[in-house]
Amino acid sequence: MGPGSGDLVRLDPMAIALDEARSAGRSGEVPVGACVVHAGQVLARAGNAMRSTHDPTAHAEMRVIREAAARLGNERLNGCDLYVTLEPCAMCAAAISFARLRRVYYGAADPKGGAVESGPRYFNLPTCHHVPEIYGGIRATDAAELLRGFFGQRRAGGT
Amino acid sequence: MGPGSGDLVRLDPMAIALDEARSAGRSGEVPVGACVVHAGQVLARAGNAMRSTHDPTAHAEMRVIREAAARLGNERLNGCDLYVTLEPCAMCAAAISFARLRRVYYGAADPKGGAVESGPRYFNLPTCHHVPEIYGGIRATDAAELLRGFFGQRRAGGT
Repeated sequence: MGPGSGDLVRLDPMAIALDEARSAGRSGEVPVGACVVHAGQVLARAGNAMRSTHDPTAHAEMRVIREAAARLGNERLNGCDLYVTLEPCAMCAAAISFARLRRVYYGAADPKGGAVESGPRYFNLPTCHHVPEIYGGIRATDAAELLRGFFGQRRAGGT
Repeated sequence: MGPGSGDLVRLDPMAIALDEARSAGRSGEVPVGACVVHAGQVLARAGNAMRSTHDPTAHAEMRVIREAAARLGNERLNGCDLYVTLEPCAMCAAAISFARLRRVYYGAADPKGGAVESGPRYFNLPTCHHVPEIYGGIRATDAAELLRGFFGQRRAGGT
């Protein structure tokens, strides 16, 4: 491995997603973050922004999918991988399928709102046309700890 | 009914949604259209725009939900009703729930991609927190005819 290729080797997309989650939490959003990676490059990174943008669809996954597609000028993110700190919900799971993402890496499971291993288990439906490779539980403890901290503070009247 | 109230009485939101579907079809998009109505006023109207905007999430429903929320400055569309020419998919059904729409009126059923009476039947899931009133089959023949015409033309090499 020669010099100059170091950035590629050090790319840690889930750390980027966790940074975005932390940043979202500081803005009063539920702390979930995501990024889209293509050929070793980060195409898009974002956290939840439903409150700040007054957009109920502005989940971290939706934001990075939309931005990555805009950057590529293509509604299909062929060969792209999504990293997200929380199990995607049904809205995001369907968007992942529509965008033809290659792989999805997610952190904490979400028994209440998730749609991958929980709820409708979207990618297992016979009507789901594109199923990415899926890897759950990536740095799940860090992701879950952020969420627990956020909701604990809210219950304590912090927000 | 006195003069001046005529506009309210004549509001036909599904006709507006069908107009948007036709317009989308003319642009090479799958012809689906939608609008959001609040207090007798159309807050947002749009058709599918996945191809033209390079956005896999740009279903008609998503576009009108986002625009209506932006106009109201609120991620929750309390008291708002959605009209859409085709049964919503899982992405849009979840967005409808997140947006707290009051009622959903849709046209044609979509056994392949729908998520209301078909597939995951999103609003019947125990994890779905907000369930709107739902009315299907509204001008379903008109909506289905638009889709049949579009796909018939595509099969014939028209697109």
